[in-house]
Amino acid sequence: MQQTDSKPLRSEAGSIIRPGTEIIGAASVVGGREHEGPLGDRFDFYNPKDRFGEDTWEKAESEMQRMALSAAMHKAGVREEEVDLLFAGDLLNQCVGSSYGLEAYKIPYLGLYGACSTSAEGLLLASAMVGAGYASCAAAVTSSHNAAAERQFRTPLEYGGQRPQSGQWTVTGAGAFIITPACSKGGCPIYAPGVKPLARVSAALPGLVLDRGVTDPNNMGAAMAPAAESTLCRFFAASGTGPDNYDLIVTGDLGWEGSRILCDLMDTHGYDIRKKHNDCGMMIYTKNTQDTHSGGSGCGCGATVLASYLLPKLAAGEIHRLLFMATGALMSPDSVKQGLSIPGVAHLLCLEAPGAQV
Amino acid sequence: MQQTDSKPLRSEAGSIIRPGTEIIGAASVVGGREHEGPLGDRFDFYNPKDRFGEDTWEKAESEMQRMALSAAMHKAGVREEEVDLLFAGDLLNQCVGSSYGLEAYKIPYLGLYGACSTSAEGLLLASAMVGAGYASCAAAVTSSHNAAAERQFRTPLEYGGQRPQSGQWTVTGAGAFIITPACSKGGCPIYAPGVKPLARVSAALPGLVLDRGVTDPNNMGAAMAPAAESTLCRFFAASGTGPDNYDLIVTGDLGWEGSRILCDLMDTHGYDIRKKHNDCGMMIYTKNTQDTHSGGSGCGCGATVLASYLLPKLAAGEIHRLLFMATGALMSPDSVKQGLSIPGVAHLLCLEAPGAQV
Repeated sequence: MQQTDSKPLRSEAGSIIRPGTEIIGAASVVGGREHEGPLGDRFDFYNPKDRFGEDTWEKAESEMQRMALSAAMHKAGVREEEVDLLFAGDLLNQCVGSSYGLEAYKIPYLGLYGACSTSAEGLLLASAMVGAGYASCAAAVTSSHNAAAERQFRTPLEYGGQRPQSGQWTVTGAGAFIITPACSKGGCPIYAPGVKPLARVSAALPGLVLDRGVTDPNNMGAAMAPAAESTLCRFFAASGTGPDNYDLIVTGDLGWEGSRILCDLMDTHGYDIRKKHNDCGMMIYTKNTQDTHSGGSGCGCGATVLASYLLPKLAAGEIHRLLFMATGALMSPDSVKQGLSIPGVAHLLCLEAPGAQV
Repeated sequence: MQQTDSKPLRSEAGSIIRPGTEIIGAASVVGGREHEGPLGDRFDFYNPKDRFGEDTWEKAESEMQRMALSAAMHKAGVREEEVDLLFAGDLLNQCVGSSYGLEAYKIPYLGLYGACSTSAEGLLLASAMVGAGYASCAAAVTSSHNAAAERQFRTPLEYGGQRPQSGQWTVTGAGAFIITPACSKGGCPIYAPGVKPLARVSAALPGLVLDRGVTDPNNMGAAMAPAAESTLCRFFAASGTGPDNYDLIVTGDLGWEGSRILCDLMDTHGYDIRKKHNDCGMMIYTKNTQDTHSGGSGCGCGATVLASYLLPKLAAGEIHRLLFMATGALMSPDSVKQGLSIPGVAHLLCLEAPGAQV
């Protein structure tokens, strides 16, 4: 598709997707440690022992996904047969948390892998498919489970391995979201009694894969921060906005270590995001008392904080415009052992309060 | 979104996506055994030792992805900066074949996991995003590598493990596809000199996850055949068509075992697909001399056969309407060891010759 002139189809800053959809339901399911954290009472369900009635950690993760989607559909007043598409993913090998967790639902299923960026990736694609009219309702579900992730990525919990202070704690949690067309797009759904939209998905920007040479799997924040920097700068440039245009800029799970790096990196572009930035990995645990070192991580981190805390703030009008940017580290234990550095990716969503001006 | 009447938004048969896009470039990269098969001369690149100049099988798989996308873009006359979106996935844990293989490209990246269905999933989503106008050009890339898959899913090749006759041989190969709007949709791209569309993506249908209780990881065909049956029946019902409306119905990698099961299952619905059906896993190897037992499998199986053999047939007008349905088995080695049965999924694309009537 070479153009007759030299102008590329895509600007350097990339293409912003503007689906104009609404999130009409969201639910979160977490484990014991997350319930003990600052957001504890806001999650829809928790299990203090992280077992969820199952006999393996992996099945517990699947059960969290099943519960999260069920609760989100219930809160949105949507029946299973009304959901046209389901996007889901998790951290387990071959994403079995999602496939086993959601196989009970008769909803066309598209599996994703974006590591901890999967929550934003799923919301982006679900919104795009609904915004395009290919689906009248879509769902996005993601999860992670600390015990399942530890034995897969590092060592089983029973081993009692020590982690450095830059290490993060994989969140035990699942989040689910229900997307429909926005009323302003002419496809206004008939909400169930009492159901109101939580937020409008006004823009989305998929991220580039960036590898800045970080090889330490105990410092994911450092590996993912450059990807967050890239996506945020591309979005500001393409949208003509800056930090002042948003009430909050929330990253998925950079943790304390990665968040500090991101703020420093954004300084080099002339963007001071410190007053607006927060990170789901910093919000979900108490810094000094919960022993999670650099904070939370995992597909379930951003998803549960968005579902339980950020979306209700938008729905209540406490904040009006939110940039939510989930970050993922796209390595595997094998790639790390083979000496490869860790690529990162960050996908961005601009979420607005439902009543805000279009 | 409860409706005031009881009619669900989605019919039982599901929603067909009609992107109306075109595949304008495709490329395939394979290993030695695939080159020795019946389609050997049709692949764009091959490496007889499956190493591709790399020192690990995993890096070899990444290199195949990089080569495939590079070749597809070259054949389509598209520059990297003209591709708005890249969908990719593979079988390796955390999909590192894709993330490391494609990190060199500055193209917004959305990772997928659909096991061997990923080729169709990527094409479906790339087509949908282009059809919706969210991207003016998108790419889909998938791969698998026999040696990398064997040591991850079963045992390292050096172990010399025996496989039953129902077992399949993971294809060493990568396929890449470039999608643009179709001229008939008013977004006609200016093709580079000599570039002609290979096929039109006239319809797509994402599959349901189905688990019929198969627990034998050496019989993926049996695990995936019910998913193929489900998607094909849903598509026939929703489109009002049947096997007679298509020149070929090609599954991704059911192999000889799974293909027989699919044909039998379709009989029970009154559809005799035997005269129209073929399977990429049966096409890529010679049955009796290549010792692959039930045939090829893997994300690279359907992708390389589609790129090298099926799309050129459509482009040449030898066939006019093709149903391409890649099938995936969504288990992991751990889920099998934990005694879980194997869920399958199948995503369908209806591809038409570029000159065929819209």
